Amino acid sequence: VTGFGPEHLPYGVFRRAGESPRVGARLGDGVLDLAALAADGPLDEDPALFARPSLNALMAAGRPTWTRVREALRALAAGPDAEPATVAVDDVELLLPIAAGDYVDFYSSLEHASNVGRIFRPDAEPLVPNWRHMPIGYHGRAGTVVVSGTPIRRPSGQRREPGDEAPVFGPSVRLDIELELGFVVGAASALGEPVAVDEALDHVFGVALVNDWSARDLQAWEYRPLGPFLAKSFATSIAAWVTPLEAVLDRRVGAPAQEPAPLAYLREDPWAFDLDLEIELNGTTVARTSARHLYWSAAQQLAHLTVNGASVRVGDLFASGTISGPERGQRGSLLELSWNGAEPIELADGSTRSFLQDGDEVVLRGSGGAVTLGEVRGRIEPAG
Amino acid sequence: VTGFGPEHLPYGVFRRAGESPRVGARLGDGVLDLAALAADGPLDEDPALFARPSLNALMAAGRPTWTRVREALRALAAGPDAEPATVAVDDVELLLPIAAGDYVDFYSSLEHASNVGRIFRPDAEPLVPNWRHMPIGYHGRAGTVVVSGTPIRRPSGQRREPGDEAPVFGPSVRLDIELELGFVVGAASALGEPVAVDEALDHVFGVALVNDWSARDLQAWEYRPLGPFLAKSFATSIAAWVTPLEAVLDRRVGAPAQEPAPLAYLREDPWAFDLDLEIELNGTTVARTSARHLYWSAAQQLAHLTVNGASVRVGDLFASGTISGPERGQRGSLLELSWNGAEPIELADGSTRSFLQDGDEVVLRGSGGAVTLGEVRGRIEPAG
Repeated sequence: VTGFGPEHLPYGVFRRAGESPRVGARLGDGVLDLAALAADGPLDEDPALFARPSLNALMAAGRPTWTRVREALRALAAGPDAEPATVAVDDVELLLPIAAGDYVDFYSSLEHASNVGRIFRPDAEPLVPNWRHMPIGYHGRAGTVVVSGTPIRRPSGQRREPGDEAPVFGPSVRLDIELELGFVVGAASALGEPVAVDEALDHVFGVALVNDWSARDLQAWEYRPLGPFLAKSFATSIAAWVTPLEAVLDRRVGAPAQEPAPLAYLREDPWAFDLDLEIELNGTTVARTSARHLYWSAAQQLAHLTVNGASVRVGDLFASGTISGPERGQRGSLLELSWNGAEPIELADGSTRSFLQDGDEVVLRGSGGAVTLGEVRGRIEPAG
Repeated sequence: VTGFGPEHLPYGVFRRAGESPRVGARLGDGVLDLAALAADGPLDEDPALFARPSLNALMAAGRPTWTRVREALRALAAGPDAEPATVAVDDVELLLPIAAGDYVDFYSSLEHASNVGRIFRPDAEPLVPNWRHMPIGYHGRAGTVVVSGTPIRRPSGQRREPGDEAPVFGPSVRLDIELELGFVVGAASALGEPVAVDEALDHVFGVALVNDWSARDLQAWEYRPLGPFLAKSFATSIAAWVTPLEAVLDRRVGAPAQEPAPLAYLREDPWAFDLDLEIELNGTTVARTSARHLYWSAAQQLAHLTVNGASVRVGDLFASGTISGPERGQRGSLLELSWNGAEPIELADGSTRSFLQDGDEVVLRGSGGAVTLGEVRGRIEPAG
């Protein structure tokens, strides 16, 4: 298994059959049992930090602890002491790694926002006037963030067919995915005190792939004037493994200057994460893109989120929004890949897709350098 | 003190100086210390339910417990046993009563939605096409829900002045209130399983007034296409006292038929809460309205919120949206009361207001029958 070596060591929550959930770190095909390592001595930390159903206690312990634990694990991973406390990843159940407070979803890919504008508002400018001035975002539903592998039941709701005045009710017929990079807040901020853009990454514990499942038909009917609601709130999948920010800091690359220059609170040297991303649908890779296509950085997202005085809490999640690149095969949603159904995509089995069918399985993957991000997997179940 | 008799007994969280937070019930000018009553015997419950910083443990214990506790407290309140466990409300600090998971804000007043449409989209139909088909809502920020009395710092953010192309950054100049009725979820639902409209109130623990502070200038610039974000997320105030649903069930009154008839999952005999509401600004009552003006009921709101399979958790909060009646003096926001500044309102001191100034204090009140809802108070502090 490449991408899960001692340079990576992502954190997750696992459960052995019949036992309580606890925090682990992924190493190759194994999971380091951190509570056991702390109890037995090789890891000089309070085992209570890890005998928990989420990473929140570890995160709340603060960055010095994160750094100390990570350094200790890197040393352990290179030596023989880790082995007795390692369990095979296939022998455990992986659980939701974070207890998310608030979940904010941004809209930070210029290509995605432009594509959506072209599809839904063909007679208008693709980008809304505010888009280049701020990282547009909205609050999603934290309580329906689920771990990779959780089945996704097709949502029902209201949609309006073209030409009709009244809506109909039923299972979504335009169920979609959104390939996103999520950021987990590990350090809280105070109410009334904005986080400066150049301090924003200090609040980020780690990154994880996110699939923001979306019912496009529900969304089109409900979103005026208060934004997406039921079209998104039925489920958001996150990887079981949260990659420590430190493990991807060297993947930062410069980005083109933002035009127009953003307001002072958003200004920084433009950068993005050079992480390769892909979408697999029923075994066929249907898109390959990169997080470097994002226009607004994670730091700008967090600075914007808090500039009005809103606070963040340990465990909060914010995500980039769908990541699309300039080429057709680099689009991060089926809406864009199939151009709203006008150009269905072909799968290896000869079938075509515009949106998801029951039984379809989607896997999001990502990697960069020595790091393979935890995958996000989900299979569509029929509506209830 | 009227409205806080044995028929009411709202729950809150209080703290004596130097002690831990615990759950109390309001009785007249006093607070019943429920952990003490349970420890000493008059209340036959586990004291650990109440030695907590939120109502969540009590709520999670389930409706049979809620009923049992309420009946015991009603009996106690009528007798002499409560007195030794009572502390004067003025001698304690009142804390945020709930640990809110997700916060959803609806838009359920026909008059409010129509007024907003007339103000912001004067050339279009006041109501968006979906409004009469579903309770429009969006997710707010749960982490910035604060208890009544918490100072509200004026938010800063981007706004665009009329005629300008680029936005400016600075303190909001159109800071507003929204008078709302909030509903606290006490019984969770399962992911993938909608809550039927006729079972929705089974999930509601209680009601509380909510002030959904809103920066109208930030909102106007940011809200397309994903809805309000920073305009709302800096603070949402909730009363310190959560009124048990049972205490207001007799305030339900019939409401006019909804036209067109809603889809089946929203259909019920129309009803609303007959609760008188008012807004006081710097000592002047600037609006008197009623929750009976709401078009969509709390049951319809919860049925809609979950119809796509989204789950609710113990402690979730959902609110009605601004409550406005048909008359000018019945409007639940300054935006409407001053008609976006065109008709400033007069205060008793001779000054006028279109939106809030620094130092202004707003109090929301509500009552019905034997029940006075806990007030929501907030004073505006200058931007940081």
